[in-house]
Amino acid sequence: MAKEFTYTADGETVQEWAETEDEAIERACEALDDHGIDLDEEAIREHIEVVPSPNRIKSGAEGVFDERRRRAGERAAQELIEDGMDVGLGTGSTTAWTVAEIGRLLREGDLEDVRGVATSLQSHELAKEADIPLVTLDAVTELDITVDGADQYSENEPTVIKGGGGAHAREKVIDAMADELVITTDEEKATDPLDYPVPVEVMPDAREVVAEWVREAGGEPDLRMAERKDGPVFTANGNLVLDCDFGGLDDAAGTAQELDGIPGVLDHGIFLDMVDAVYLGTDEDVDVLEF
Amino acid sequence: MAKEFTYTADGETVQEWAETEDEAIERACEALDDHGIDLDEEAIREHIEVVPSPNRIKSGAEGVFDERRRRAGERAAQELIEDGMDVGLGTGSTTAWTVAEIGRLLREGDLEDVRGVATSLQSHELAKEADIPLVTLDAVTELDITVDGADQYSENEPTVIKGGGGAHAREKVIDAMADELVITTDEEKATDPLDYPVPVEVMPDAREVVAEWVREAGGEPDLRMAERKDGPVFTANGNLVLDCDFGGLDDAAGTAQELDGIPGVLDHGIFLDMVDAVYLGTDEDVDVLEF
Repeated sequence: MAKEFTYTADGETVQEWAETEDEAIERACEALDDHGIDLDEEAIREHIEVVPSPNRIKSGAEGVFDERRRRAGERAAQELIEDGMDVGLGTGSTTAWTVAEIGRLLREGDLEDVRGVATSLQSHELAKEADIPLVTLDAVTELDITVDGADQYSENEPTVIKGGGGAHAREKVIDAMADELVITTDEEKATDPLDYPVPVEVMPDAREVVAEWVREAGGEPDLRMAERKDGPVFTANGNLVLDCDFGGLDDAAGTAQELDGIPGVLDHGIFLDMVDAVYLGTDEDVDVLEF
Repeated sequence: MAKEFTYTADGETVQEWAETEDEAIERACEALDDHGIDLDEEAIREHIEVVPSPNRIKSGAEGVFDERRRRAGERAAQELIEDGMDVGLGTGSTTAWTVAEIGRLLREGDLEDVRGVATSLQSHELAKEADIPLVTLDAVTELDITVDGADQYSENEPTVIKGGGGAHAREKVIDAMADELVITTDEEKATDPLDYPVPVEVMPDAREVVAEWVREAGGEPDLRMAERKDGPVFTANGNLVLDCDFGGLDDAAGTAQELDGIPGVLDHGIFLDMVDAVYLGTDEDVDVLEF
C-alpha cells in the first residue's frame, strides 16, 4: 500500500507519495533538499502516512490523488467516525481516503475502539495497512455507519448506483447493515434521474437468459469484459456482471424490484432509499447533502 | 448410473435393478432361473434400461423406487414431451424418472430432436447416461417445457417450494425460462398454506446478517449442515443455505418479494405463480392438477 510524506515548515509544505515506504523516503529526501530543509531519516519516517495505492484502485493515480476526492473522503472520517463505532469500509477512490484517515486518527489517538468491516478486498488491504482493527462480516449483524463510494448519486432522492467496481453485492449487504450510510463522491457524479448503466451480478450460466429478462424489463445489458485477463470480469463471488442501460431511471423503485425478482441475479447496483448523506468534494471545500 | 432389467413372459414380469449393468445382469440371471426362464446374455442386455441411481439422489432407494413417484415421472415424459422440444430437466426422485423415460423414448424412436438443459449435476449425469442430447444453459433463452420436482405444492395456487436439494437457484432460472412448468411429485407434498421451511441461498459471509433480516421478515432461519462433510452444505454456486421457517405462508407473494429484496441472497425457494400443472403419483394412477 502506498505511503506519503508530508512536512510543513515556514509555511511551506513538502508532500511526496510512492508505492513503497523506501521510495517515499527517497523522494522526500530529494524534495527536502530542493527546499533546503535538513531532516534525518527517523524524522522523515515520523511524517509518513499510509495513503490509498493507485495500483489497487481502478481510477489510478489521477483519480486517487484528485484533491476533491481526498478532501471529501478525509472529511467524512473526521466528522462522522466516533469512538467505539463499528464501521463499514467502502470501496473506491474517495472512500479510500476515509479508510486511510480513520487509520491515521486511530494511530494519533484521536479515535479509539473503532472496528472495521471491509466491503471488498481493496478496502480490506488498505484497512490492514492502515492498522484499523478488522472483523469479518459474519461477526456482526449491525454497523454504526458505512462510508462508501457511488458511481452516480441523485440530489433529490437517497438512492445511488454502485457496482462500477464489481463489488456491489457485498457492498449492498454492508451498506444495508449500517444505521447510517454516507456516500463520499464527486460533484460530477450527480444526475437526475439516475442513468448510470446498472451493474447486475449474475450466475455465469444464466447470463444469456438474464440478459433477455433485463431487455424485457427495459434495459440494454452488456457483459462486462476484463482488461487484464481474457474474457469477462468475474466478481469475488465467481459471478459475471451485466451493465444494464435503462436510460433515465424514472422509476428506480420499480426497476430495482424487477431486478430483485429476476432468477439467477445475486444483486444489482441500485441502492434504493438507503443513503443518509452524501459528502462531495468541491474545488475549495466539502459539500454535505443530507436525506 | 443404475440399470434395470425388465422382462415379461406368460403374464409374469421379472424386474431387477442394480447400480451397475454387470450386477443387473447377474441379478436378472438369478431371477430368471427362479422363474424357469431361459434367456441368453445378449437378450438380457436388450431388456436393460437406464434408471435413476439412488446413489445420487438424496431420498435413496426407497424414495427413488417408490412406485407412485416412478409412475408420475414416467407419465409426465410420455404425455408432455414432443418432438423437437427443448426441455428443462429437473432434479429429484420423481423427476429423475421423467429424465430416464425421455431417454428411453428417444432410444426407442418414439421421440426425436429433443434437447435437454439440466437443472443440476444430478440431472446432468442422469441425462448423459440416458443419452439425451444436452445443451448448456447459456445456449438457449427459452425452453418449451421444464419438468421439475418440488418439496411442497399447493392444490389452490400455482406456487411451490423448492430447494430441499440445494439446487433451487439454477432450477428457478430454468423453470422460469420454460413456456410451461410441470411439477412431478407425491400427493403427500400438498399443503395449504405452504409451510415448508423456505431454502434461501446466501453469500457465505453474509449468512449472519441475512439470518437477522429473515427474522425481521418473520422467518426462523437455520443454517443447513452437511452430512457427508464437516460443516455446512455448500451449493454448486459456493453459497450456503438457510432453511427459513415462516410457519404457514399466508402471503407467499409478500414473503417472496421480501426475500427477493434482501441483499446477499442469490435466490429463495418460493417459486411463485410459476406452475402450469402438477403430476401426482397415487397408489393406482397419476393425478394431474392444472393451473
